[in-house]
Amino acid sequence: MSDDRHDPDRRPLRFDDDRWGLGLRGLDADRLPHRESVFALSNGCIGWRGLLDEGEPVGIAGCYANGVFETHPMPYSEPAYGYPTEGQSIVNVPDGQVIRLLVDGEPFDVRTGVLERHEQRLDFRAGTLHREVDWVSPSGSRVRVTSTRLVSYDRPSVAAVRYSVEATDTAVEVTVQSELLANVPVPEGTHPDERIQRMLERPLAPVGDHVLGTAATLVHRLRRRRLRIAAAMDHLVDAPGGARVDTETSPDLARTTVGVRLGPDERLQLMKAVAYEWADDATAGGLRDRADSEVAEALREGWDALADAQRRRLDRFWHAADVVVEGEPRLQQAVRFALFQVFQSAVRLDGRSVPGKGLTGAGYQGHTFWDFEGFVLPVLTSTLPESAREALRWRHATLHLARDRARELHLAGAAFPWRTLDGTESSGYWPASTIGWHVQAAIAAAVIHFHRGTRDETFLRECGAELLIETARLWMSLARRDEDGGVHFDGVTGPDEYSAMVDDNAYTNLMAAQNLRAAASAARSVPDVAERLGAGADEVDGWRDAAARIVVPYDERRGVHQQAAGFTEYARWDFEGTPAEHYPLHDHYPYFSLYRSQVVKQADLVLALYFAYDAFTPEETERAFRYSEAITVRDSSLSACIQAVIAAQVGQLELAADYLAEAATLDLDDVQGDTEDGVHLASLAGIWTALVAGFGGFRDSETEVRFAPRLPPQLTRLAFGIRFCGRVLRVDASTDATTYTLVEGEPVTVRHFDEAVELEVHRPTTRATPPLPDPGPRPTQPKGRAPRPFGEAFGR
Amino acid sequence: MSDDRHDPDRRPLRFDDDRWGLGLRGLDADRLPHRESVFALSNGCIGWRGLLDEGEPVGIAGCYANGVFETHPMPYSEPAYGYPTEGQSIVNVPDGQVIRLLVDGEPFDVRTGVLERHEQRLDFRAGTLHREVDWVSPSGSRVRVTSTRLVSYDRPSVAAVRYSVEATDTAVEVTVQSELLANVPVPEGTHPDERIQRMLERPLAPVGDHVLGTAATLVHRLRRRRLRIAAAMDHLVDAPGGARVDTETSPDLARTTVGVRLGPDERLQLMKAVAYEWADDATAGGLRDRADSEVAEALREGWDALADAQRRRLDRFWHAADVVVEGEPRLQQAVRFALFQVFQSAVRLDGRSVPGKGLTGAGYQGHTFWDFEGFVLPVLTSTLPESAREALRWRHATLHLARDRARELHLAGAAFPWRTLDGTESSGYWPASTIGWHVQAAIAAAVIHFHRGTRDETFLRECGAELLIETARLWMSLARRDEDGGVHFDGVTGPDEYSAMVDDNAYTNLMAAQNLRAAASAARSVPDVAERLGAGADEVDGWRDAAARIVVPYDERRGVHQQAAGFTEYARWDFEGTPAEHYPLHDHYPYFSLYRSQVVKQADLVLALYFAYDAFTPEETERAFRYSEAITVRDSSLSACIQAVIAAQVGQLELAADYLAEAATLDLDDVQGDTEDGVHLASLAGIWTALVAGFGGFRDSETEVRFAPRLPPQLTRLAFGIRFCGRVLRVDASTDATTYTLVEGEPVTVRHFDEAVELEVHRPTTRATPPLPDPGPRPTQPKGRAPRPFGEAFGR
Repeated sequence: MSDDRHDPDRRPLRFDDDRWGLGLRGLDADRLPHRESVFALSNGCIGWRGLLDEGEPVGIAGCYANGVFETHPMPYSEPAYGYPTEGQSIVNVPDGQVIRLLVDGEPFDVRTGVLERHEQRLDFRAGTLHREVDWVSPSGSRVRVTSTRLVSYDRPSVAAVRYSVEATDTAVEVTVQSELLANVPVPEGTHPDERIQRMLERPLAPVGDHVLGTAATLVHRLRRRRLRIAAAMDHLVDAPGGARVDTETSPDLARTTVGVRLGPDERLQLMKAVAYEWADDATAGGLRDRADSEVAEALREGWDALADAQRRRLDRFWHAADVVVEGEPRLQQAVRFALFQVFQSAVRLDGRSVPGKGLTGAGYQGHTFWDFEGFVLPVLTSTLPESAREALRWRHATLHLARDRARELHLAGAAFPWRTLDGTESSGYWPASTIGWHVQAAIAAAVIHFHRGTRDETFLRECGAELLIETARLWMSLARRDEDGGVHFDGVTGPDEYSAMVDDNAYTNLMAAQNLRAAASAARSVPDVAERLGAGADEVDGWRDAAARIVVPYDERRGVHQQAAGFTEYARWDFEGTPAEHYPLHDHYPYFSLYRSQVVKQADLVLALYFAYDAFTPEETERAFRYSEAITVRDSSLSACIQAVIAAQVGQLELAADYLAEAATLDLDDVQGDTEDGVHLASLAGIWTALVAGFGGFRDSETEVRFAPRLPPQLTRLAFGIRFCGRVLRVDASTDATTYTLVEGEPVTVRHFDEAVELEVHRPTTRATPPLPDPGPRPTQPKGRAPRPFGEAFGR
Repeated sequence: MSDDRHDPDRRPLRFDDDRWGLGLRGLDADRLPHRESVFALSNGCIGWRGLLDEGEPVGIAGCYANGVFETHPMPYSEPAYGYPTEGQSIVNVPDGQVIRLLVDGEPFDVRTGVLERHEQRLDFRAGTLHREVDWVSPSGSRVRVTSTRLVSYDRPSVAAVRYSVEATDTAVEVTVQSELLANVPVPEGTHPDERIQRMLERPLAPVGDHVLGTAATLVHRLRRRRLRIAAAMDHLVDAPGGARVDTETSPDLARTTVGVRLGPDERLQLMKAVAYEWADDATAGGLRDRADSEVAEALREGWDALADAQRRRLDRFWHAADVVVEGEPRLQQAVRFALFQVFQSAVRLDGRSVPGKGLTGAGYQGHTFWDFEGFVLPVLTSTLPESAREALRWRHATLHLARDRARELHLAGAAFPWRTLDGTESSGYWPASTIGWHVQAAIAAAVIHFHRGTRDETFLRECGAELLIETARLWMSLARRDEDGGVHFDGVTGPDEYSAMVDDNAYTNLMAAQNLRAAASAARSVPDVAERLGAGADEVDGWRDAAARIVVPYDERRGVHQQAAGFTEYARWDFEGTPAEHYPLHDHYPYFSLYRSQVVKQADLVLALYFAYDAFTPEETERAFRYSEAITVRDSSLSACIQAVIAAQVGQLELAADYLAEAATLDLDDVQGDTEDGVHLASLAGIWTALVAGFGGFRDSETEVRFAPRLPPQLTRLAFGIRFCGRVLRVDASTDATTYTLVEGEPVTVRHFDEAVELEVHRPTTRATPPLPDPGPRPTQPKGRAPRPFGEAFGR
């Protein structure tokens, strides 16, 4: 039993069996931070963690607006040229979730009295978080509290709650305090630097607070950055015989108090709407009025209309994107949870970035990393392409900062940041950031896949080509030619965070080649853009030539590709001598020790096997995968899903299923113990990837879309949808055969294994699964680092 | 004219021609910080920068006590395992230099009135800083102020000043305020972290202040570390007709006021004694009383006795250590200045460390680095061996911290820190510190040379063997064996700071081999120590075996050793495209860019050619030097002296002379513009090395001492002394011949080129210089980075 990754003292939350939602019965106060993350609601623009309405108990408070972040000094004991001097951290906007309740004068608190029932459910089709509580107060008053919460997909700055209290036994006196609360406490240790911790604790300076009728607005500004934010709220109150309603504000607190006496079975119901508006160039009054107006509109429209709009958006999403798996209900739940999270992280992006945690927590200070483009964006391209485009538009909007950064580093083109909120490099550890140049290639690959998946020539002309060309230029200025004309990239860091500053990282080199070829191709497709950027024929030819000459390191002696030049010569990590409690290794060993050893944190060469799949023969893929498996410890959440894809490709279906299960349980079971900081969006996207690219065998190229569906023994059916080029294609695989159905769009030819299949709309076509060649013995992993078996991971 | 390194707007201080001192006429207020550094006095225990007596104007205030430093948090935006969490910075102890003067009520200030004469002179034989000023106050009062200052070699906690004011024209009313001043302001930007800057500005918290008769004492404590310091002062006053003397204290200020009326040609003279006592385990009262007693003793002994003792210590030093050069008087001055600085940095070390700047400034926060052992300690071994031993005793005293550090890093033996005040690693940038493992080898080499130079078996038994064995164990735990049995050190950083995290750095590997062999040899010499440390025969054999199998990278294609594996494949730096104002490169280019290029900041492979000279044939040395010259930019002060040594070895005598001149003018001409932070002690020691090991050809081995004196055309004579094994040997070389004289000690055989020369005491022996083989064309340096010609450097 390899449960090394589990803290034996930690009881994971146990969600209800539920294929279209995530339900929890009871309330384990110790696990609140985890619950708050998985129950977070977002639309890509604003996000609310799944806090209890009454505000207490609380794990990690969190209400976010995409773009509301603070900067802070980033000192170095040994500063050097090109080091970023400012860090960036997302901060809490005023918390609009709080609806406190007093029952016969006693505060409603799940930790007191008798909690007869506590149920919460995140609904993947409704886009809401629903809660029902039956509670008896310490002095015996009995109420039922029901709340449904949404973060609106149609009104991106609006969140709303429908809240009711019912006297379920005798009459009760009820007081509801609905609040907007600024500068909510954050836990100690939110940031390693004590000064920044203090800043995060009180990020907002009051500018004004206003009551207009029952509506209340707080306006704040950041203390360092020039940005103001207004938060407004108002309510619709429905109470038997009317209620006393009173609204007051102070600089950091707005409160609407509703008092009413409820007879038996009577109910107080209220709808609360909250809106946020922020800008660096608007007046406090302007922002206040916009927020007030958003709230007024939402209330005018009413709860049902807001809720219907949520469902319509999700219906459209699920229509194409839904993944059906049969054989393991918890996997079914996990993949829909994952898709729901991907959806809500990006549905109303409107040119904003997607942080590594979405807007579900403040982990990584709210920064965006390359794994968004690498892991999440391809999923969006196939399921929600308009959001993929918006995310790439955000990158394009930061191009001037990337150009500045390249210039600062004496490089050509654009150098996008390793971690950022607004496009400015915010990492203080360059060996794992600045020289992780592959971030450029991930952006380029996202452009490539988006273009293959949409043929959106407008985007290519307006943004895509420029992203490809400017990143290609960066690669050219980094390249070294050897005496035989081979092209090398020295002193780079690839995806594996247990290596750094290596020469010729295979992944980096292959992705750079892709980037260069795509830039050349884009320059041909939109010559006016190339001309505007001064990319003449010689320069473009240079990209093609360099791409063709890029060296990929190969160990002739061992007959295997190298993660980087010389990597296979390095010392083997002493896996036998590494106790289970020393994982993750980076918490127990210094980086220099990891860097100089054959130990891999996360898919790197294996990621190349997937992202640059056409650069490897099947035999090379098999050998590289087997080699990598023996030294990969998966101390990163960015690994299992990719290992699943390649395991499936090489026919190691049970191993693939085990990796899939690990990815699928990561956030729901809080396997790494850090889901409290927010969900792992890239890993969630990776569940889709493991299923669709892994067992479904989905690959795209310039000329075709390919599938090679092959199920592991644990699954009896896998069905998924792909949007591409205006089409919706559903693929429905069983163990023996796959049925392809073009649900929308023009006829198309797809590839099923080696066979071309012509599809027309609503004409399902079924093809048999060819026999599986012998994949050889199951690859082995380092001691104690094999994934848990599929069934065990799902608690069977 | 290659004066790229010079700021054209900066007028260097121009010292008097003076073979035994450093004199300055006039006062250039802009250059005060430089003046204060070169005029600093120290004894290794306490140090006073050469501030003007009257305290103003001031460049960078600085009074130091070796061991009085503060710790502070060292935050990281991305912390990781094994990162030091605390930094250390030297702080100012109470300033006892201040003697303010009022003349007829007007403050004596060189910026007002008429400064008719201002002369200062550092006396290399007297160990004093002398000053004479003729000044006319704004209202016409005329005085002569004379002061002589010393930091006592006999009383290591004592500094003293003899101060006089003379009415040189009419009668004047004179008031002298002699002070102890705590928490003296330091310049902005002393530390890059603003919090630490604030700490350095007020490092001391008052504990008590006391007046006893005319004596005054201030007791302070550090705010964070547990350490108290007492500073005491008292005075002898000699005034015509007696003077009014009054002493008062407040928490941060002690002041003795002396008032007197001086008739024409009358003089007020006073002797001020200041003593510092500090400890982490003594009471405030105990420290106060010790400091008071030191002051009382010094005054009782009197100025002349203190001054005589200085001279006696220096006489003994110069007897063996003096270096005579003829042909360039400024070089003569420079080498004696250098030796004086080395002397005063270490004469009363008494088991303390020597910072990179000695106690002449707070540069590098007062930290000690490997270059002390690498560059300074061999000079001490040959000139002041008892101080070399004390410095190594300090390293040995920190062995427990180095063992802890190794354990933390999962390594065996001891890992000494890259930079430290007390033995704790204090670097926040591990790629250039933690993995600079060669610090161990520098310590080991210092032990080796000290033992060769002294045959001090007591030290070997008590300290040396343990240092060798524990560092050998570190190397063994870092070593990787390849499939052919070769031993490698991967992921290390060598001396060159424009490279990092390389495999098989030639210098590191060769020095590790030395270290391992010496440890094996020590284990044989003192088997009881080896046994106590558990080093059995198998372990010791393992060291010898590993040493023999260590791989040194060699480029077969180009026929040259590599600084590190693969280094000669890296991109050549674009020297042609690098403008002069972009030097030093690390201020204008990111490290990653330097690291992946063939550009060398400082001697690395060339340092190996010297420190591991017997690992290279003459032809290999010549090729490696020529190769390195073409890519070495000397952005470090640790380079020119070593390049001089190897240039001389390969017969490039004029090039060697140019490098020597660069080292010799570095601090005196403030070539790098940073001497204000303190002198570059290692580079100063390197002047001796360039002369003695370079033109003198001095090398030691287990079995012999070798010389190969050969002068460049600019010099007509080079004479130097070496202490070894109880002997004093003087070597006196002209262009044609060298005379060896054993001044003290048992007969010995030394080698003159290939010839053995037997020496008996007081029997000078002369040998001719063999003809110089053709050294080939002069090696070239990167564009604009050739050293200035010797004559030009010395202002000819």
